[in-house]
Amino acid sequence: MTAPPSASPAYRRMSVEDRRTQLLAAALTLFAHHAPEDVSLDDVAEAAGVSRPLVYRYFPGGKQQLYETALRSAADELERCFAEPESGPPTERIAAMLDRYLVFVDEHDAGFSALLRGGSVAETSRTTSIVDEVRRAAAEALLVHLGGDRPGPRLRMLVRTWIAAVEAASLIWLDEGKQPTAAELRDWLIDQLIASLAAASARDEPTAAALRALLALELSQDGTEEGPGRVGLLARAILPAARRAAGPV
Amino acid sequence: MTAPPSASPAYRRMSVEDRRTQLLAAALTLFAHHAPEDVSLDDVAEAAGVSRPLVYRYFPGGKQQLYETALRSAADELERCFAEPESGPPTERIAAMLDRYLVFVDEHDAGFSALLRGGSVAETSRTTSIVDEVRRAAAEALLVHLGGDRPGPRLRMLVRTWIAAVEAASLIWLDEGKQPTAAELRDWLIDQLIASLAAASARDEPTAAALRALLALELSQDGTEEGPGRVGLLARAILPAARRAAGPV
Repeated sequence: MTAPPSASPAYRRMSVEDRRTQLLAAALTLFAHHAPEDVSLDDVAEAAGVSRPLVYRYFPGGKQQLYETALRSAADELERCFAEPESGPPTERIAAMLDRYLVFVDEHDAGFSALLRGGSVAETSRTTSIVDEVRRAAAEALLVHLGGDRPGPRLRMLVRTWIAAVEAASLIWLDEGKQPTAAELRDWLIDQLIASLAAASARDEPTAAALRALLALELSQDGTEEGPGRVGLLARAILPAARRAAGPV
Repeated sequence: MTAPPSASPAYRRMSVEDRRTQLLAAALTLFAHHAPEDVSLDDVAEAAGVSRPLVYRYFPGGKQQLYETALRSAADELERCFAEPESGPPTERIAAMLDRYLVFVDEHDAGFSALLRGGSVAETSRTTSIVDEVRRAAAEALLVHLGGDRPGPRLRMLVRTWIAAVEAASLIWLDEGKQPTAAELRDWLIDQLIASLAAASARDEPTAAALRALLALELSQDGTEEGPGRVGLLARAILPAARRAAGPV
């Protein structure tokens, strides 16, 4: 990379790396809260308090390069949200992952929406492959807590379809002014995941084995003085309808 | 539209409307089985047995116009898949919709995949709004069978997230060489929907009301000589795990 110019005293004081970081931070904030169409290089220059040519000096590819660099950085941040130790009830670990994910969605609202909705001029095969990489990372992280060492193809499909459902729910949540609360949305999504596992277990033995392992972990930590955990509460809520639907067995 | 030239005897015989239909059919077939990047105007001309300039005469916008016209036509075809009379168990109606949808996915495999994966050069705000329109039509069609006249916001979210899950599952299905069978995938997806409804009912009274209405319709047609329906079978399969998870109530 060419060294930046020392055009003004204000510019001179910052190192190359610091300046790059500062420009990227300005771009990240702008791309988080606006669709890429609505962000210009002038906006980035203004937000960073520098000239447009200086932005070009650091990002010769212009807005597209800034967008892709910002997206790469946001993707790395999002993937860090998925790291969760393997202890405690699995549904609580996934709840913690979802909490961090929803904070990310909240903080990147308009940009997140524009990215996932597609059709943006800034969308390329590179940007979609970054999004796909995040989805794969999310699936792998979830399978650590759900599927053990050898998840079958149906369980993999379940996790990937649930991730798609989480994305869709996040977009609806943003559209609806972030209602219900993030905590309510998280609980709704976890209930959906547990129910998915239970339903898929009916037709697939590897998924049934994963559900048994999950239940064992949930229940061994359950029935404490705080009362039943997520799975127990959901099961109690579902039982009456399930008994009615099952009829005389 | 300008009348097409009467350049050769073969061209002369077809009416303007027939020629346009023929070109669009050739484009539809090509775009169904290839990503838009991999289809050229020459391919369309060759498939239709006409010259490249003739294709331009009908579609002055070139490949992009042909792609968007083909997409519009495919979207109309897909929306027709969602029409289903309001009779019989709701899950069987949705199964019939899914069967038609999966035939469409099967017949438009590579094009469907490229469209939903995004990042294509042919993707614009117009193409994404066509896709969104199909999703909205699917949600409205499903709510007719699930939610009655006044579905609440949680039930709407449930239906839209299930549609996202169906799309994700379709892409995985195409990736995995259309395994399992379309019928197995359909049953898996319907089980997921029933389980979603049951889980969402635990926290939302309008969804619970919709589930009760659904169960009443399912069970009134159930217990015939063919045995229990989808909901009954799923409930029976889930009951043991649900009882274990619920613990002593």
